[in-house]
Amino acid sequence: MKPFLDEDFLLSTDTARHLYHRYAEPCPIIDYHCHLPVRQIADNVRFRNVGELFLAGDHYKWRAMSAYGYTNDFIRTSGDEERFMAYAKAMPRMLGNPLYHWTHLELKRVFGITEPLCGENAKAVWDKANAMLAQEDFRARRLIEQFNVKVLCTTDDPVDSLADHERIAADPDCQVKVLPAFRPDNVVECENPGFAAYLGRLSAVAGVPVRTVDDVLCALDNRVQYFHEHGSRLADHGLDRVPWVQVDRKKAEIALRQALRGEPMDGECAEHYRTAILLGLGESYDRRGWVQQYHIASLREVNTRALTAYGPNTGYDAIADEPFAWKLSRLLDAQEREGRLPKTILYTLNPAFNYAVAAVAGAFQGGTPGKVQFGTAWWFADQLDGMREQMKTLASLGLLSTFVGMVTDSRSFVSYPRHEYFRRLLCDIIGTWVENGEYPDDEKTLGSILRGICCENATRYFGFTL
Amino acid sequence: MKPFLDEDFLLSTDTARHLYHRYAEPCPIIDYHCHLPVRQIADNVRFRNVGELFLAGDHYKWRAMSAYGYTNDFIRTSGDEERFMAYAKAMPRMLGNPLYHWTHLELKRVFGITEPLCGENAKAVWDKANAMLAQEDFRARRLIEQFNVKVLCTTDDPVDSLADHERIAADPDCQVKVLPAFRPDNVVECENPGFAAYLGRLSAVAGVPVRTVDDVLCALDNRVQYFHEHGSRLADHGLDRVPWVQVDRKKAEIALRQALRGEPMDGECAEHYRTAILLGLGESYDRRGWVQQYHIASLREVNTRALTAYGPNTGYDAIADEPFAWKLSRLLDAQEREGRLPKTILYTLNPAFNYAVAAVAGAFQGGTPGKVQFGTAWWFADQLDGMREQMKTLASLGLLSTFVGMVTDSRSFVSYPRHEYFRRLLCDIIGTWVENGEYPDDEKTLGSILRGICCENATRYFGFTL
Amino acid sequence: MKPFLDEDFLLSTDTARHLYHRYAEPCPIIDYHCHLPVRQIADNVRFRNVGELFLAGDHYKWRAMSAYGYTNDFIRTSGDEERFMAYAKAMPRMLGNPLYHWTHLELKRVFGITEPLCGENAKAVWDKANAMLAQEDFRARRLIEQFNVKVLCTTDDPVDSLADHERIAADPDCQVKVLPAFRPDNVVECENPGFAAYLGRLSAVAGVPVRTVDDVLCALDNRVQYFHEHGSRLADHGLDRVPWVQVDRKKAEIALRQALRGEPMDGECAEHYRTAILLGLGESYDRRGWVQQYHIASLREVNTRALTAYGPNTGYDAIADEPFAWKLSRLLDAQEREGRLPKTILYTLNPAFNYAVAAVAGAFQGGTPGKVQFGTAWWFADQLDGMREQMKTLASLGLLSTFVGMVTDSRSFVSYPRHEYFRRLLCDIIGTWVENGEYPDDEKTLGSILRGICCENATRYFGFTL
Repeated sequence: MKPFLDEDFLLSTDTARHLYHRYAEPCPIIDYHCHLPVRQIADNVRFRNVGELFLAGDHYKWRAMSAYGYTNDFIRTSGDEERFMAYAKAMPRMLGNPLYHWTHLELKRVFGITEPLCGENAKAVWDKANAMLAQEDFRARRLIEQFNVKVLCTTDDPVDSLADHERIAADPDCQVKVLPAFRPDNVVECENPGFAAYLGRLSAVAGVPVRTVDDVLCALDNRVQYFHEHGSRLADHGLDRVPWVQVDRKKAEIALRQALRGEPMDGECAEHYRTAILLGLGESYDRRGWVQQYHIASLREVNTRALTAYGPNTGYDAIADEPFAWKLSRLLDAQEREGRLPKTILYTLNPAFNYAVAAVAGAFQGGTPGKVQFGTAWWFADQLDGMREQMKTLASLGLLSTFVGMVTDSRSFVSYPRHEYFRRLLCDIIGTWVENGEYPDDEKTLGSILRGICCENATRYFGFTL
Repeated sequence: MKPFLDEDFLLSTDTARHLYHRYAEPCPIIDYHCHLPVRQIADNVRFRNVGELFLAGDHYKWRAMSAYGYTNDFIRTSGDEERFMAYAKAMPRMLGNPLYHWTHLELKRVFGITEPLCGENAKAVWDKANAMLAQEDFRARRLIEQFNVKVLCTTDDPVDSLADHERIAADPDCQVKVLPAFRPDNVVECENPGFAAYLGRLSAVAGVPVRTVDDVLCALDNRVQYFHEHGSRLADHGLDRVPWVQVDRKKAEIALRQALRGEPMDGECAEHYRTAILLGLGESYDRRGWVQQYHIASLREVNTRALTAYGPNTGYDAIADEPFAWKLSRLLDAQEREGRLPKTILYTLNPAFNYAVAAVAGAFQGGTPGKVQFGTAWWFADQLDGMREQMKTLASLGLLSTFVGMVTDSRSFVSYPRHEYFRRLLCDIIGTWVENGEYPDDEKTLGSILRGICCENATRYFGFTL
Repeated sequence: MKPFLDEDFLLSTDTARHLYHRYAEPCPIIDYHCHLPVRQIADNVRFRNVGELFLAGDHYKWRAMSAYGYTNDFIRTSGDEERFMAYAKAMPRMLGNPLYHWTHLELKRVFGITEPLCGENAKAVWDKANAMLAQEDFRARRLIEQFNVKVLCTTDDPVDSLADHERIAADPDCQVKVLPAFRPDNVVECENPGFAAYLGRLSAVAGVPVRTVDDVLCALDNRVQYFHEHGSRLADHGLDRVPWVQVDRKKAEIALRQALRGEPMDGECAEHYRTAILLGLGESYDRRGWVQQYHIASLREVNTRALTAYGPNTGYDAIADEPFAWKLSRLLDAQEREGRLPKTILYTLNPAFNYAVAAVAGAFQGGTPGKVQFGTAWWFADQLDGMREQMKTLASLGLLSTFVGMVTDSRSFVSYPRHEYFRRLLCDIIGTWVENGEYPDDEKTLGSILRGICCENATRYFGFTL
């Protein structure tokens, strides 16, 4: 029996252990997609206690607590300590959930705590961790640096001034490259309330009057350029479902006019508008060598009661099961036909679409290693089985060796052990192939492939300079 | 090489073996969903031979026999002995099918027969088993008791008088708690032939004239109460596809009036009716602390020729692949919004929807451990891979420790070894985690979690008193 | 650590090794579905070099090269040697892809080359292989015979004269039974350009004037008979999506008339036409004891730019995710209702539909072992995980023992090691069951089942005489 969470955690063969410790473990982290609040990095915040650090913003943990049986009100309104104690009590019952591993990796890597967390030792953990958090070395930036993060891309709205990013860039103390990423969902999702007001803000910040779809695209292109000048090299789209229609610009204009006049929007015209914006943005990205990310198949905020009580992004989302492969292929094809398909990463929240997404990605390759990527297992799929399935599907249908690897996609400053988790699994998969005689024991190539997936592929793909 | 089907069947590690034999194996069975004919329990029937016992009602076995190559007519019309011999002859060719394991577990646990069944030994098995079946100890109730079943919930129509249940309850000889479960498909599926006549029966038995949707719900509520008084604590819905529409009561009433007048029903209005009934029933369940079960994604009776020749539920069903996550989330949300979401178990027949169902369940939690359950692998998915996938998905996306576990969902009196099968697999999964260092070797917690999944969670969740 | 690709490749247990070498390895190959160019077999072509042999027609390899980063133009226009060198250079980066195994099995089995291919040894491999290809023993037919292929079914259009097949049949030198297979996609896909012209060719070759749907079916039946006389025993349909509608013959006739007049076709009527043709063909097949194959869920030619530049079938396809189980069940049911359902093999390109397809197949059985087959993992799914999932799903939901096994589905003369790959995996799965005590160590039955899946089931199912 292997001890719990030891140095060879998840590594079941000698080859896996060797590959991990020699090649994967030392690699820096290129965190090209996360949701860390950039202001907290700029402020280099100090966390008041481990309860805040672990539980103030992490809806994964809240969600598990509600499944355990705590009421949602308790989870959202109790104090840091009370909530931490409750979380600790539930911890042993989270066996098999990634939170069980994440939490213990967080305790081990951040605080050196290796005892399994439970109700009985919760107070001791609370005290020990809090004492450490009071130290300078445990402020936000040091936490990030401690995990060997070299690049960190936050998620930013096109209208954002990026002032916090400018503060960080101007601060010689910050050793992590903190870059903005462009997330224009607010300008794509034209049927959301507040869309017209949002266009007004976009118009103002871009200095472009917005009356036509071309105006919107011009304003967006200005902002892409602005982000580019702040070091951004990638965009991110939350496409819960994939919009697609053979664009009729007139219909797209009708939708926009309806929005600007505050009229109800024609559903079909809205789809023309959305598609036109995605195509136009793709061109803006491609001209600058950017990467666009499509996050597909989430079903957001399905619990109205919780949305009303606690707001969005608090743990009441689900996974969509509507087919989208055909529309996705049309969307990429429309960009490719014009010679304007940027490097693209396709993520599916529902692993039932793994094959469909990997195959679409495989049909738009050439000229760049892994030009269209089948992106890493994400959110609900970001756990051992989900990651394993994504990597094995990518390997079977495409080239695992070109993979740009893991993202944290997290709102938590201590979520970086998820890279360790991913890398251990990756080394275990590859190590097993070697041990089984399915790949030669060619250390030089294996090491190179592993460094690629862990950091070098991403650095090159996004064009980061370290 | 491990011997075939020995005491450590499916248990690949020391931890798994210890956990199974110490914690899982001794647990009683809480069979909260089966299709055993309650009259046969009330009558405590004696089986005329092993052919009847194994093959008279088990469409899983008939289906495998037709895949083997027997004609459907032979399978449905041959005598007990001839059919048993044919089944035995086909048995060795069922390698990899759960029937291979189920049948041998049935032979071993019921009759002590351990020799692999085949054409050559079929007659000897026939004779030995039949001699035992002639004994008092092999009548229906003793078979159930022998498997340590403490609670058994049959599947009953709302109009059923529950007379057989009353006979059993009044019979001090019956040591198993046999309870009715409420299956109102006939009142939901308003486009089925016979719907109007069925409403007449419901009206009569409930003593409520049925002219409006509220009348239907009132009649149903009466029957829920009647079932409640007979010990029922749960309902079951076969939602081959999930109905959902934002209910317009007027449209629901139109559908009902059309039905009552014998007119063809408007398809859209029918959906309003169905949704209204499901929402109203949810409220009836929730007020009494009941559990509602939704069985989703079957495609029933796809072979018209066989349906005509042999009737329904004879082995000619399939699995649906139409998306349903959004509608399902709306259906639960509508109940949650009113504060009237009962405890609910969601089952998908198609494992391609495992993630979608587990995620919807995870968005409606709180206040009760595992309030909305991602239910066990079912029917076609009730086999090693299907169960493994369901449990691993539940563990990854929710909390396996709150799982209410296995159901037999069977028409056969000898199907209880399926619980053994499930428990062995469960212990093997958890044992592997422990052996791999993915969970601490904390026997106390592991034992408690296992007892929970095997029987205690269900007992508490349904509110049974043992 | 096992050596790379040794004689026990993929065989992880003693039982697996014994079963493979004793029973599976010696079986001849019944290649009942491939895309080899029959003219090249008739001509018994000599390959000019290993570049042509490996890369001239294999879009799997081109696709992997574009994912590696070569431009599509380079891949399609470079010379044999340049392309082979580029492929060899990329090879080590294909770890985890079936091409990695296929290519090395091809090098080993055809040329006895066992060194892992890479940029460094590419020239040496090129020279050695080319020297061998210059020998008589490496012409097309000898390559096929070397792999112990006994039957090989090409893919042929109904209007084909089968002249090349006649040449082969008349040639006593050819020891492989090369048979045509009937692929009438051109007459089903009525909305494709060129449909009317195609009907003209069909009419001419069948000697049947084509004015009505019955005329089309009559012409097709003539051609089925013609193929039958040339030894054909099976048909193949590429049903990217499954057409189905309750046929109204008048609407089908409207569609046909529109086509014949060169008018745009009504979409609904086209579906009636397609369904009518499929049902009529099913009857033609069934009367002659043929097998019909349905290949479902591909999304073809999604990259318009590549299609324009390189033509169809060059590696720019994807996988569909639209549900089809209900329509598929209706299509089979319509045939079964008339007592005219032929033996049928159902293939899904998307493993997300494995359960749905296996369950539909299971509902139309009886009279013939595995009458409706859940066909082998195919194209993108033709790799270790895809094959494993298909076989385990078939075993769980149906009878693996009746499976007609592997197809090459290839355009390459050296793709036969895929059968070895499949058989090794099959033996490993079954060997693991035996070693784990999930099936008795009954060598006689196991050997018989393995020979069945490797060759005997197919021979009997298709009615080939060896």
